[in-house]
Amino acid sequence: MTQRVYNFSAGPAVMPVPVLESIQRDMLALPGVGASILEISHRSGTFVAIAEAAEANLRKLLSISDDYAVLFLQGGSRLQFSMIPMNLLGKGQSADYILTGSWGNDALKEAKKEGETSVAWDGKSTNYDRLPKNGDLKLNPQAAYIHYTSNETIQGVQFKSEPEVGEVPLVCDASSEFLYKPLDVSKYGLLYACAQKNAGPSGVTVVIIRKDLLKRSDPNMPGYLNYQIHADNGSMWNTPPTFGIYVLKLVTDWLLNDVGGLDAMYQRNQDKAKLLYDVLDESNGFYAGHAQREDRSLMNVTFRLPSDELTDQFVGEAKKQSLTDLKGHRSVGGIRASIYNAMPLAGVEKLRDFMVEFKEKNAK
Amino acid sequence: MTQRVYNFSAGPAVMPVPVLESIQRDMLALPGVGASILEISHRSGTFVAIAEAAEANLRKLLSISDDYAVLFLQGGSRLQFSMIPMNLLGKGQSADYILTGSWGNDALKEAKKEGETSVAWDGKSTNYDRLPKNGDLKLNPQAAYIHYTSNETIQGVQFKSEPEVGEVPLVCDASSEFLYKPLDVSKYGLLYACAQKNAGPSGVTVVIIRKDLLKRSDPNMPGYLNYQIHADNGSMWNTPPTFGIYVLKLVTDWLLNDVGGLDAMYQRNQDKAKLLYDVLDESNGFYAGHAQREDRSLMNVTFRLPSDELTDQFVGEAKKQSLTDLKGHRSVGGIRASIYNAMPLAGVEKLRDFMVEFKEKNAK
Ligand SMILES: Cc1ncc(COP(=O)(O)O)c(C=O)c1O
Ligand SMILES: Cc1ncc(COP(=O)(O)O)c(C=O)c1O
Ligand SMILES: [Mg+2]
Ligand SMILES: [Mg+2]
Ligand SMILES: [Mg+2]
Ligand SMILES: [Mg+2]
Repeated sequence: MTQRVYNFSAGPAVMPVPVLESIQRDMLALPGVGASILEISHRSGTFVAIAEAAEANLRKLLSISDDYAVLFLQGGSRLQFSMIPMNLLGKGQSADYILTGSWGNDALKEAKKEGETSVAWDGKSTNYDRLPKNGDLKLNPQAAYIHYTSNETIQGVQFKSEPEVGEVPLVCDASSEFLYKPLDVSKYGLLYACAQKNAGPSGVTVVIIRKDLLKRSDPNMPGYLNYQIHADNGSMWNTPPTFGIYVLKLVTDWLLNDVGGLDAMYQRNQDKAKLLYDVLDESNGFYAGHAQREDRSLMNVTFRLPSDELTDQFVGEAKKQSLTDLKGHRSVGGIRASIYNAMPLAGVEKLRDFMVEFKEKNAK
Repeated sequence: MTQRVYNFSAGPAVMPVPVLESIQRDMLALPGVGASILEISHRSGTFVAIAEAAEANLRKLLSISDDYAVLFLQGGSRLQFSMIPMNLLGKGQSADYILTGSWGNDALKEAKKEGETSVAWDGKSTNYDRLPKNGDLKLNPQAAYIHYTSNETIQGVQFKSEPEVGEVPLVCDASSEFLYKPLDVSKYGLLYACAQKNAGPSGVTVVIIRKDLLKRSDPNMPGYLNYQIHADNGSMWNTPPTFGIYVLKLVTDWLLNDVGGLDAMYQRNQDKAKLLYDVLDESNGFYAGHAQREDRSLMNVTFRLPSDELTDQFVGEAKKQSLTDLKGHRSVGGIRASIYNAMPLAGVEKLRDFMVEFKEKNAK
């Protein structure tokens, strides 16, 4: 095997090595089947059992009740930006959006094409470095739904708990934190996440939707965009992304059996993030965190160095030590270390050590 | 390695073994990268080069000129059923549909939701066992486009050449024949194919669109559904299905380098199909082909046995000989042997021998 690096990419992102090894082992033929996962019909008993196991794993990890449908869709989270208002926003209704970073803004852009919207809070004036308190939200009690982004991947701000929105269905883009800790799904109307951060490869998006909301889908809307159709057909109205669902099954097996569930995963994630945030907090401003302390993300650690030259030097020297993909998103700059579920503690420790050394050498 | 079967699934379908071996070899780390194809950012130099190579391979295999954009999309061919009219069918216009089987009908169903349509020909009265002659088509010279299905996967009828439609943009669902032989792309306005038959795994769909048609896309339509947006962003407006595109690159490498191009591929496909059709033709009606002789498909060989009992017996005994997935689609019944590009000659020969023997034992 070629030497592996520690890859801090924001997505597609690092995967658990045992999952990659399973995929590798069975790539030419699933045991007892004699054909690759890439070759078998989505209607075969083998694949149906894989898809059912993926769903059962998610239901177990997140204690998802039968009041919710779990869908496996294509199109990424961006297609959800459109599908949500197309399905849930009726004529004459309005939807509330909480804007805590880039992705929430992009979600709003698509919703505006479909109907009335209102901004319940916008963090723009402080460059999306913090989250609203519950009292700050300008909520419409008649809203069709309220949308928020639980972890803003680019800015690195993450809600610790759900905003309080009363009876209005809460819709959450959980793309970059999904499965990082336990969740009370019953608080949500709809929760969605593209898989390519914590759950699998790109090309499959998980949508968890309260079944009573399915009746809002207009039978005359485009078939692939209709949640009711996907729920009625167990995500097999058309050919699903079979490989992605297979990997999702393996990743959730890993969470259940190797990690030991989401409480244990959460503890690991807290421990990992603390290693890096401690360096920031003790750096006398050499590493300046983008997010306010109480709102910073356990998944995407964003910070700036004193100059662009030092930032480039940091990225270059890190890469020589097999610490890759640390450049921040162009819209925020600086450094972003994405430390999703599958990033091992050893990778974060190595980055921590590098950061301490780099500061010692370069701080004035 | 577990023993492999010969898998005649209609899709997801058999893959070239060298492609599966490449995927397996590099699953833990792409050479020189140190991370899996599943883990690297779609914006990384490594992935961008893979996507560009996939596109370059397609352009080479099909001689696609710069007048066309090549897109890699999610949502399967069914999402194309909606995207095509949403992008190409303007207000007050009408689109023509040629119906030669199940998939064309499903495409029409979605188009009707978006605007005016007209049926240029419908094979229903003979249960979709044949194709129209050019003179049979009821064409509207003002149509926004004319849609047809070059190979009907379920019925097993396949056009030998494009229907003649004058100046109206020709839109083709080539899902189940894409890359089986050379094609004159300049005859098409848009050609699309989900990958899971001839081109790769499920989860990625290739769309080849004449660039002048892109201006029909309304900037106010949902972002993910807008061809212009995908073309402007090289299919990276959002996270593309990276693994699927990688496999597409490997499959097209195989076509170029191992097979030797689409002329050679076409010869192989003709040879393979002849083996099975000869058995049908010489079976005195024991194997009754669904499609009329001149319209039958080189990809999906559909036929019936004298009784349902014999059909079940055929499927069961074939499976014992590692010939799998031969049951016909529920809407046509009987047997369907899908013999896509990657089905080796040896697999078809084995099926041929089985069919001959089965007939000898069971014909009265
Ligand atoms: C929070 C969040 N929402 C949405 C997206 C968009 O997902 P996709 O690229 O799959 O459309 C991303 C990441 O890419 C994200 O991090
Ligand atoms: C000719 C044809 N068109 C469309 C489809 C639908 O593709 P998908 O399931 O990817 O939506 C298929 C097969 O599944 C097909 O064979
Ligand atoms: Mg991404
Ligand atoms: Mg609406
Ligand atoms: Mg299929
Ligand atoms: Mg229109």
